Amino acid sequence: MTLMKRIAIDMDEVISDANIRFSEWYKRDHGIEFTLEQLASSGFADLVPEEHRPIVREYAFHQDFFKDLGVIPGSKEVIKDLHEKYEIFITTAAMEFPYSFTPKLQWLKDHFPYISWTNIVFCGDKSIINADYMIDDNVRNFKRFMGQGILFTAPHNRNVEWDVRVNSWQEVREMLL
Amino acid sequence: MTLMKRIAIDMDEVISDANIRFSEWYKRDHGIEFTLEQLASSGFADLVPEEHRPIVREYAFHQDFFKDLGVIPGSKEVIKDLHEKYEIFITTAAMEFPYSFTPKLQWLKDHFPYISWTNIVFCGDKSIINADYMIDDNVRNFKRFMGQGILFTAPHNRNVEWDVRVNSWQEVREMLL
Repeated sequence: MTLMKRIAIDMDEVISDANIRFSEWYKRDHGIEFTLEQLASSGFADLVPEEHRPIVREYAFHQDFFKDLGVIPGSKEVIKDLHEKYEIFITTAAMEFPYSFTPKLQWLKDHFPYISWTNIVFCGDKSIINADYMIDDNVRNFKRFMGQGILFTAPHNRNVEWDVRVNSWQEVREMLL
Repeated sequence: MTLMKRIAIDMDEVISDANIRFSEWYKRDHGIEFTLEQLASSGFADLVPEEHRPIVREYAFHQDFFKDLGVIPGSKEVIKDLHEKYEIFITTAAMEFPYSFTPKLQWLKDHFPYISWTNIVFCGDKSIINADYMIDDNVRNFKRFMGQGILFTAPHNRNVEWDVRVNSWQEVREMLL
């Protein structure tokens, strides 16, 4: 048996779409709707007036925020194929949002049923992760990461510099399969 | 700044006493009480009649099981001192027991308030942990662990072979401080 390489994959903005949820709730509370183009241009907190930023940040601490989030296009199909050739772990910094535990686990069961509970990690500081690759939308998670960080493009990181970046799951497929 | 070495520390039977909870609930349900000596002699499931083992295993899936567990003697004091010289992460295979998430987090806040949420990890397969040492009561967690596994003596592992074993938190202090 050859040892499979291991990929650690983040959830929010990588496989699950939390950005759209921010937008839905903001519309519900303030009656303002952003276009998909606007949503794609920068992190959601940067789209709203400064006085609303704390309210928007609070959303993620609400128990319903992470329920039934959308799936980032291509992630289901590409991760299923990666799963044949790599050990896949889902590594999410959920520890900051204890209300997210149950919905995140349910969401993974619904959309990625082939990922075992043994391969799901709720953590904070991701330097604790032992993997060869990490696909994540936050470069801060790569800072002390032992493997290769792969920055997954999200609205908030468009202008962040990082040498290995992918803009879609199709690009992950091309890089790793 | 020199880089601190990192210790990953398990919860059940290492810092929290789940064994006593099994015993309390078994007494409640079956009226049979074990002595501390009996409890220390082997894993709880091995003390009860074979037909009761599945019931005992179910206990850990109940939402109250992990609430207000006792603290393993010495762990508070020794980990506080280790915390000055090492990076400490709590790494618990909680993913199998989703009901344990909230009580485990609360328990850590109550008894180890100096451990930040960033340094708490709920996982399954512990080979995902990047650390120098792992203090754990299950040798299966050392199998693919990149660092040195330190077996913490618990009733169920008395007869397990492992080259680095500690019988108490005092012995951890002597080994690592």
